[in-house]
Amino acid sequence: MSKHLIEYADASARVRVVYDDIMRTRQVDQVNNFWKCLAAHPDTLERTWFSLKQIMAPGSLDPLTKELIYVAVSVTNNCSYCIGSHIAAARKAGMTDDMFGELQAVIGMANETNRLAVGYRVPLDDAFKE
Amino acid sequence: MSKHLIEYADASARVRVVYDDIMRTRQVDQVNNFWKCLAAHPDTLERTWFSLKQIMAPGSLDPLTKELIYVAVSVTNNCSYCIGSHIAAARKAGMTDDMFGELQAVIGMANETNRLAVGYRVPLDDAFKE
Amino acid sequence: MSKHLIEYADASARVRVVYDDIMRTRQVDQVNNFWKCLAAHPDTLERTWFSLKQIMAPGSLDPLTKELIYVAVSVTNNCSYCIGSHIAAARKAGMTDDMFGELQAVIGMANETNRLAVGYRVPLDDAFKE
Amino acid sequence: MSKHLIEYADASARVRVVYDDIMRTRQVDQVNNFWKCLAAHPDTLERTWFSLKQIMAPGSLDPLTKELIYVAVSVTNNCSYCIGSHIAAARKAGMTDDMFGELQAVIGMANETNRLAVGYRVPLDDAFKE
Amino acid sequence: MSKHLIEYADASARVRVVYDDIMRTRQVDQVNNFWKCLAAHPDTLERTWFSLKQIMAPGSLDPLTKELIYVAVSVTNNCSYCIGSHIAAARKAGMTDDMFGELQAVIGMANETNRLAVGYRVPLDDAFKE
Amino acid sequence: MSKHLIEYADASARVRVVYDDIMRTRQVDQVNNFWKCLAAHPDTLERTWFSLKQIMAPGSLDPLTKELIYVAVSVTNNCSYCIGSHIAAARKAGMTDDMFGELQAVIGMANETNRLAVGYRVPLDDAFKE
Repeated sequence: MSKHLIEYADASARVRVVYDDIMRTRQVDQVNNFWKCLAAHPDTLERTWFSLKQIMAPGSLDPLTKELIYVAVSVTNNCSYCIGSHIAAARKAGMTDDMFGELQAVIGMANETNRLAVGYRVPLDDAFKE
Repeated sequence: MSKHLIEYADASARVRVVYDDIMRTRQVDQVNNFWKCLAAHPDTLERTWFSLKQIMAPGSLDPLTKELIYVAVSVTNNCSYCIGSHIAAARKAGMTDDMFGELQAVIGMANETNRLAVGYRVPLDDAFKE
Repeated sequence: MSKHLIEYADASARVRVVYDDIMRTRQVDQVNNFWKCLAAHPDTLERTWFSLKQIMAPGSLDPLTKELIYVAVSVTNNCSYCIGSHIAAARKAGMTDDMFGELQAVIGMANETNRLAVGYRVPLDDAFKE
Repeated sequence: MSKHLIEYADASARVRVVYDDIMRTRQVDQVNNFWKCLAAHPDTLERTWFSLKQIMAPGSLDPLTKELIYVAVSVTNNCSYCIGSHIAAARKAGMTDDMFGELQAVIGMANETNRLAVGYRVPLDDAFKE
Repeated sequence: MSKHLIEYADASARVRVVYDDIMRTRQVDQVNNFWKCLAAHPDTLERTWFSLKQIMAPGSLDPLTKELIYVAVSVTNNCSYCIGSHIAAARKAGMTDDMFGELQAVIGMANETNRLAVGYRVPLDDAFKE
Repeated sequence: MSKHLIEYADASARVRVVYDDIMRTRQVDQVNNFWKCLAAHPDTLERTWFSLKQIMAPGSLDPLTKELIYVAVSVTNNCSYCIGSHIAAARKAGMTDDMFGELQAVIGMANETNRLAVGYRVPLDDAFKE
């Protein structure tokens, strides 16, 4: 499809190790285009995957909550690839239509009040200082 | 403190209705500086408060999750007032130190991969199209 | 105040030409810190001032409208210096308290609906295509 | 066209009330895709429309000025949907080609000087403090 | 292709002067769509071209380094046109595949640590103050 | 200074391993506040440091070029901590005053043309497509 996408069949042994770990971890039989692009620079592919794997694993926050946070950042940054892939991941992790609606409402409101706080140059309350 | 902060004692009846509703809803005896600044434009004060109250109420997403999303947007937008006030709100809603650490890790990672996806001009997978 | 601010007394002839034109154009007897910082790189000082002077001159849009647009961009980018200086310039050009309130309301709303349009991945209506 | 667009014929009574008010207020016989997407979450549809209607009504700032501000925010945030829809709205409100050219020039300049002020870490002049 | 693109054959004498200088400076026989759009507002076309020409000329920083910086800003702002055109310009100036990979890695990392510094509200070390 | 800064004396063995590696790699006898904050979440401290160390090491791009790119991203994101720390790092790596002036000029110009390209909705030239 794109000359920039490195398919499994064409990948080096080093890249395949990452692809295999992605497929095993996510229990899928294909890696997304994101990884096929990063494979052009194996250092970045390895570092990004192993970082993401560590960060998105269940911890104090559950996987769905982490995906919702990921979507919130991606929408605020206007990254259409990440919006598409992480909305899909959030749905897989259990996001319902109602949750999606509430997520977007919170993102929209936060973006509005962020600018109001900045535009009105609101001084930070003592209670919010660290 | 600031000539821009409208205190309860100096507020119009219309503004006091909002201040009273904020204090009753949040069970506090003071409104934050944010509201004291918005009070300069009562339309904005009313609309912002009643919108926020509706959006942040418990729904399909619980209040803690909503506050985490709020912090994620505010950090991405670099709004220091909202970071301070919503970290405080998230802690009040139950955010532990571990959750805070994981929240920041997801925010950081999402900001990184957002730019990698854009910089590598990754084409959207068919599976992520709507 | 800062070692980075180049005062008139210490400025080169080339920098003084720009300072003089700023003071004459704006009918003030001091240049702002912004120009005193840029003076460290005279190419940037000259280019920025003469560009700004051309762009902000009365044209199809009047000076107040241009300052309101400037504030809207600066708030969205969260640039505290430009918010401070252009709110001052807008007030000088005639911005009332009511106009300020409406300006912030539009900025906030635009930031909110920008994210809603992105988050909902709204397809562009044919009527809006060029 | 998209499974996500809720057409009038398929809309609930609650959604139709909003669609009717949009069409009556704007004197058009169709609502834009933006509203057809938000209709998936009626709380968001209602709140967004009635907020927008209040904010964009003629006030101390006229409708054209408000649309120019809207475009400035949308360009700075890089929201292609809102750029398309609000350039159309601005033209309808009287924006000429010259005004469009001046608008873009101010937006570009503001984005440039915002970064120069930040990169040079310019200290705020006392005169600009509140 | 687009009604907004002003081709050389249809351009005014004033616009042709700029087009000619672009083609001569870059030793190409066509100007990019960017300039063909800006030509709708000749003040903006002239100012933008002569500013860009001055800024991107070899100086203390070489042309390749300047193009890498340009790509870094464009990726962070998510401007697909500028990403496309400045990646092409960087390649022309000598950017190899390895350099591209390292460039993206630095951009990604900087975006991540920017948010971590903001989210953790890290106080500036005295050593970094001016 | 801040309850959030974890000093070496108070750090766990796991955190000290990272602090030691930072000091050895950079040949300094103190770690910056950034690391002292991240130390609250050792996973993030380790991952961020070892990622940064790998990315910023000399490669196809030299350390100074990497620092200039880092500053460009940090200015565009308006992260004052990272601007301060990476301007210092760039100076240490050889950035002169002239280079700093040219860096800021390129950052400013890129931010301006990014918005012009978006605001004029410039169609991507075929030559820039991948």
